Amino acid sequence: MQRSTGGNVNNNDMVNLSIDQVYDLSVDVLSRNGFSAPHAAVIAKAITAGQRDDCQSHGMYRLIACVQTMQAGLVDPAAVPALTHPAPAVVQVDAGRAYSLLAFEEGLPHLAEKARRNGVAVLAINNCFHFSALWPEVEAIASHGLAGMAMTISHSWVAPAGGTRPVFGTNPFAFAWPRPGDSPYVFDFATSMVARGEIELHRRTGRSIPEGWAIDRDGQPTTDPAAALDGAMLTFGSYKGSALSTMIELLAGPLIGDWTSLQSQAFDAGAGGTPLHGELVIALDPAILGRGQLAANMNGAEAMLDAISGQGARLPSERRFKARARSQQEGVWVSRKLYEEVKNLGMECQKELK
Amino acid sequence: MQRSTGGNVNNNDMVNLSIDQVYDLSVDVLSRNGFSAPHAAVIAKAITAGQRDDCQSHGMYRLIACVQTMQAGLVDPAAVPALTHPAPAVVQVDAGRAYSLLAFEEGLPHLAEKARRNGVAVLAINNCFHFSALWPEVEAIASHGLAGMAMTISHSWVAPAGGTRPVFGTNPFAFAWPRPGDSPYVFDFATSMVARGEIELHRRTGRSIPEGWAIDRDGQPTTDPAAALDGAMLTFGSYKGSALSTMIELLAGPLIGDWTSLQSQAFDAGAGGTPLHGELVIALDPAILGRGQLAANMNGAEAMLDAISGQGARLPSERRFKARARSQQEGVWVSRKLYEEVKNLGMECQKELK
Repeated sequence: MQRSTGGNVNNNDMVNLSIDQVYDLSVDVLSRNGFSAPHAAVIAKAITAGQRDDCQSHGMYRLIACVQTMQAGLVDPAAVPALTHPAPAVVQVDAGRAYSLLAFEEGLPHLAEKARRNGVAVLAINNCFHFSALWPEVEAIASHGLAGMAMTISHSWVAPAGGTRPVFGTNPFAFAWPRPGDSPYVFDFATSMVARGEIELHRRTGRSIPEGWAIDRDGQPTTDPAAALDGAMLTFGSYKGSALSTMIELLAGPLIGDWTSLQSQAFDAGAGGTPLHGELVIALDPAILGRGQLAANMNGAEAMLDAISGQGARLPSERRFKARARSQQEGVWVSRKLYEEVKNLGMECQKELK
Repeated sequence: MQRSTGGNVNNNDMVNLSIDQVYDLSVDVLSRNGFSAPHAAVIAKAITAGQRDDCQSHGMYRLIACVQTMQAGLVDPAAVPALTHPAPAVVQVDAGRAYSLLAFEEGLPHLAEKARRNGVAVLAINNCFHFSALWPEVEAIASHGLAGMAMTISHSWVAPAGGTRPVFGTNPFAFAWPRPGDSPYVFDFATSMVARGEIELHRRTGRSIPEGWAIDRDGQPTTDPAAALDGAMLTFGSYKGSALSTMIELLAGPLIGDWTSLQSQAFDAGAGGTPLHGELVIALDPAILGRGQLAANMNGAEAMLDAISGQGARLPSERRFKARARSQQEGVWVSRKLYEEVKNLGMECQKELK
């Protein structure tokens, strides 16, 4: 254990960990805090991917909220996902009020197999809590040679364009396309102007937010993060972003027999918990749909993507992929404070129990 | 013929036509100009829907370009769509370089049937020219009780976020969700800031365009419509809109064995013709995916949509639906000039031939 979760300390109060060490530490912390082995493994995998790709808010830091939310009693840390096959191109997974990741992991091989057989397939995850980014999931789909889309609702924090009161969640939408080599084309963004955590971060650090992110509870533009959190966030892209967010409400909610952000918010009843909701994932097979000319099609895609990066414009996940390559060589650096806090998660609690 | 394509003239040089008269006139003009009966019927249906919903640019006005483009020799006015079934959840239609509408019309019943059997299905249209909006298509899917998405590429007119040179088309994306009553929830928007025709209209009328719509050929922001048309349009929603446009390039292009906007542009070789490309349509069945609680799911969707319109925010197609109801009562009004021009389309040509 010491080998894998130890880590080297340098002079600047930073700890260097290999990717394997982040994973082993995460599994250890999650298992010790009551997550079943299958849940601990997939959550640790997502946490490790976030830390590896330098997405700090989805890295080791997230273990703290992950454990605390579970301890608050809402999230089932050991639920066994229940898979059903309501139609040839659909796999549906009831997550049983656990985090979504194990449901995705167990649904993925069925999704891929169904997409390869039918040309397109859907993975619908129901009744799950969500704390993770969607890019690891669409990347996993792309690693099967498939194009993937994923979307979820959250809590009703975001006002529709032209309105003043929240209806939508921050409703992330992610997409990946398989490319030659290691890295797919992939994006994952909130359909709100920014993630809610971004506004909370501004509030905690006493900074004002830019205009256009949110309105106050009277529907007036605000640069005060507290007034924004008390009012409503705004969608990106005005009416078009608002329309996309509406689509996500419908597809990741009622389409798959699950909640809208308004319903998830009502269930939460002001407790401030993680959204309980569904997730829609769609996979499409370029080998079936490509009219027998897969190689030429992939070349056309590469020429288009190269025309973006070739003129110096950034592809969406370039920063992450650079961080990934660096982490694979050098491991990751985390603050000693975070490292100690994560390492000791639940230790106090355990001592009290003894 | 006189009865159905005649129309009443009022004092203001406007002509009043019933919806049936618009349809009959359109069929007449298209047939007389060489379109086969099946193509004339579906094109007339789309033209009539545009005029009825007060989308002037997709109404009778569009007949002129439709006929002129065909006469220029690129569009096959009589191609018979070739349907194939490469997988259980896919119907693929080679439009044979005709306009897309007949391919959609013939693919739709298969799409609906496959979605109902498999939970999700894809209609891929290849090798088609496109002049029509996507909302009639996703509305048709919703009328089957299915959720529908549609997307196409166009010509490479739009620069990626952070770039200066065009890569994407105006890449429209449309979505519809079935609602109780006559009208679905539906949107249809370009992923460029505005439609290209909007910039052309500014140029023709000597007006400058707002900043943010386009850049000139040096990559600098411009308010000059001519410099914009010579440079590059911009996507809506900055990096997020740019990512969506990239997704549409991949899904409506290489995924289905068809072209990107760069390839469509290269084929056009500066001729200024309509894009020759593919279209991806996805249908999802709420009855299969809804976990046996369809009525409750639909109520959840309605509550969310009512929370938008109930606070005075506009649902995307409200203006069209109001115009539709009005047209069904009162018919449509078109300028006598347009009416005469459409009515005489190809007449000169016919006289010369005699």
